[in-house]
Amino acid sequence: MAKKLHLNAFEMNCLGHLSHGLWAHPADQRWRYKDLSYWTELAALLERGKFDTLFIADVLGIYDVYGNSKDAALRNAVQIPANDPALIVPPMAHVTNHLGFAVTSSTSYEHPFAFARRMSTLDHLTKGRIAWNIVTSYLPNAAHNFGYSEMMNHDERYELAEEFLEVVYKLWEGSWEDNAVIIDKNNRIYSDPNKVHKIEHNGKYFNVQGPHMSEPSLQRTPVLYQAGTSSRGKAFAARHAECVFVTGTDTSIMKRQIADIRRQAEEIGRDPSKIKFFTPLVAVVGETREEAEQKMKVLSSYYSHEGAMVLFGSGTGYDLAAYSDDSYLEGPRNHVQSIAERFSKNAPNPRTVGEIRQSLNHLRGTGLYVVGTATEIADQLQQWIEETDLDGFNVRQVISPGTLEDFIDLVVPELQKRGVFRKEYEEGTTFRERLYSADSGRLPDSHPAAKYRRQA
Amino acid sequence: MAKKLHLNAFEMNCLGHLSHGLWAHPADQRWRYKDLSYWTELAALLERGKFDTLFIADVLGIYDVYGNSKDAALRNAVQIPANDPALIVPPMAHVTNHLGFAVTSSTSYEHPFAFARRMSTLDHLTKGRIAWNIVTSYLPNAAHNFGYSEMMNHDERYELAEEFLEVVYKLWEGSWEDNAVIIDKNNRIYSDPNKVHKIEHNGKYFNVQGPHMSEPSLQRTPVLYQAGTSSRGKAFAARHAECVFVTGTDTSIMKRQIADIRRQAEEIGRDPSKIKFFTPLVAVVGETREEAEQKMKVLSSYYSHEGAMVLFGSGTGYDLAAYSDDSYLEGPRNHVQSIAERFSKNAPNPRTVGEIRQSLNHLRGTGLYVVGTATEIADQLQQWIEETDLDGFNVRQVISPGTLEDFIDLVVPELQKRGVFRKEYEEGTTFRERLYSADSGRLPDSHPAAKYRRQA
Repeated sequence: MAKKLHLNAFEMNCLGHLSHGLWAHPADQRWRYKDLSYWTELAALLERGKFDTLFIADVLGIYDVYGNSKDAALRNAVQIPANDPALIVPPMAHVTNHLGFAVTSSTSYEHPFAFARRMSTLDHLTKGRIAWNIVTSYLPNAAHNFGYSEMMNHDERYELAEEFLEVVYKLWEGSWEDNAVIIDKNNRIYSDPNKVHKIEHNGKYFNVQGPHMSEPSLQRTPVLYQAGTSSRGKAFAARHAECVFVTGTDTSIMKRQIADIRRQAEEIGRDPSKIKFFTPLVAVVGETREEAEQKMKVLSSYYSHEGAMVLFGSGTGYDLAAYSDDSYLEGPRNHVQSIAERFSKNAPNPRTVGEIRQSLNHLRGTGLYVVGTATEIADQLQQWIEETDLDGFNVRQVISPGTLEDFIDLVVPELQKRGVFRKEYEEGTTFRERLYSADSGRLPDSHPAAKYRRQA
Repeated sequence: MAKKLHLNAFEMNCLGHLSHGLWAHPADQRWRYKDLSYWTELAALLERGKFDTLFIADVLGIYDVYGNSKDAALRNAVQIPANDPALIVPPMAHVTNHLGFAVTSSTSYEHPFAFARRMSTLDHLTKGRIAWNIVTSYLPNAAHNFGYSEMMNHDERYELAEEFLEVVYKLWEGSWEDNAVIIDKNNRIYSDPNKVHKIEHNGKYFNVQGPHMSEPSLQRTPVLYQAGTSSRGKAFAARHAECVFVTGTDTSIMKRQIADIRRQAEEIGRDPSKIKFFTPLVAVVGETREEAEQKMKVLSSYYSHEGAMVLFGSGTGYDLAAYSDDSYLEGPRNHVQSIAERFSKNAPNPRTVGEIRQSLNHLRGTGLYVVGTATEIADQLQQWIEETDLDGFNVRQVISPGTLEDFIDLVVPELQKRGVFRKEYEEGTTFRERLYSADSGRLPDSHPAAKYRRQA
């Protein structure tokens, strides 16, 4: 039987997430990102399309490597302006019943005590439909916005993230026992104080006394998303993540990445099949391939090459404005090669900067890119899943909500017809229950968070 | 002409804000605080009643002075469990058009960069209906939740708050010029980079580079609320606040407090009439006074005396469990006297602990308390405004939403008939425009935040 696939919509509370320049397209509605109705309409659309979640990316600083300046990011609205990702969730939950919401939040700059309460509040308000995309932040400007003169190095960011998770696991899983809230109206006892615990965390980065301010929500710990590409990142994902993002354009490399993380998860006692892998998807669909290609041609004419170089600059640390076309990126060969692998398929290595620049002049991005009929797109999705052991896709919007409308009206029915995508939402109240067809919204006992539980 | 009065509903994202024990009353709906529909229904009710705002209190720790333990707070659900106050605002904005939302947030424990973006996001999503209740946090457990071994002293909390405000003013008022967002589709320029500025704040407590991540919202700086009772607090309110909370049961003391803050505001060049003063109100209304008194008698039978002592303990620092009834509170005479003044009218000084304990066994709280007909309540409201120069009231709920339903159905029409409360919302898109019958949602030039503006 073919593997069931999962679909997230890939969004951000801003004008231009990854489709640089498309805000200027007359049909693009993303200029309404500041309006509640943009988000409530989008959520209703996704629930009509039986999507798993709306995934909301985030950054805490400006992309200022390209041209050694913030200017190109501002001109092209590359992830700035960008508003808070969590505050749009409750109104979307108000107009939906099944759609999950994955909120990005960094472990590097906010305090775990307040963050844990925000996530518990969201899990209460959505009745258990919250996921958290764990990031450690890679923009130097974000460090400067939060009082650091320079960014922590990559491994230290992960060390801090490990402790951050320990703190929030203690708050979510360990502070309130399952039967702490007794609501005894006769004796006027709401919570049994013997079953609500301070956590008394004293660590290298955090000291947190507790107890957690929120009573237990349906999932307690939100479903955990993470993107791990470095070896430290992959180990972190294998330990903590329930959904993992992998990027790339080469299915054989992706297959190795996925297998590697599943193997590491198994080694520490987790069920490797419980970890779901996603890659970004750009799908432009037409009734015929010619129609799809024509559509893509028009969309591409709005694409901002400068915007792509802004993103590449801060994503890789390389300022392409400082190189000539016939030069090569300087740096360790492994590093340069991994960048080439992420940004284009079957790239000859080393590539000239001119070739890299050229490869960025395209909406395709770092995942699956398909232009064609619904049949062709469904074929490609299934083929990638077979070749890589992926579980699903993060569907990027080229124009919003047009891209998702087309996908939901044309591709989703084709996937449903093939029996690889749900026709109705699975049973279960919470997102975690639906994700695993499980009968509990709680983390399994094999997850490292479970050891902080304090039950009778 | 009689002064127009303003009304805020006084709430908190929890079971028991100040009406300790009433969660057990069969008509109380506050057990639904975790449900979106509790909040959307409440917001719709308040808009029907033409209220200015829903004011949402908050704490970041547990009340653990009474009995030197967290237990009584948990048993009585005294502000724990308590969820995040900001996340309930967007769904309420979704179902209303005029109601303002005042969100409490502390300057002591969260970082101003992320906080500023959250408030800008709320101001965008509500189209300019956001206020911020600035607090510095007074619970020792909150300090322990955020990594401090002991609480900063009162004056240092205010010093830090001053710098926190400087940072957020720079982000809200100074980072993006008014015409920075040009949305030039032909030339594909969303923001003019020359008009978006880093703030480069380097201070004692914070280093923040910027720019602000959010484009300017309608109000930019939210309407500023604050409760200042200490001399440091009053000076802070005179400098920054647009709405000030004063508490007490003696109108002559309140009159002096209000006059003192207005005078201090005038001394630094602010229009003293622009500062609006509010005090809490408990109003239980009946068709006859007997009916109201009977209603109050039933409500009072649910009141938790222990809950009141929990709040008193952390609010004052005195653990009444450690005193005998015939003893006196130890400490500086001024301090002990100011506590007595806050907690009961015409109190003889010094009072025995037994007398204090007795005075806490009552729903009246620290503001205006009236039980009677709509006419009697309206009379009292007008009398307090005349005697003290107050501008309005924070209406506390005894049971929710029953207290507000009664108030809106019976008292509001009486106030409208007398011409002292609006029959329809004032013109103006934003909360600040309606509050001042002004033609701009922006802070006036005389406010200290205005000096951070960077205009051509």
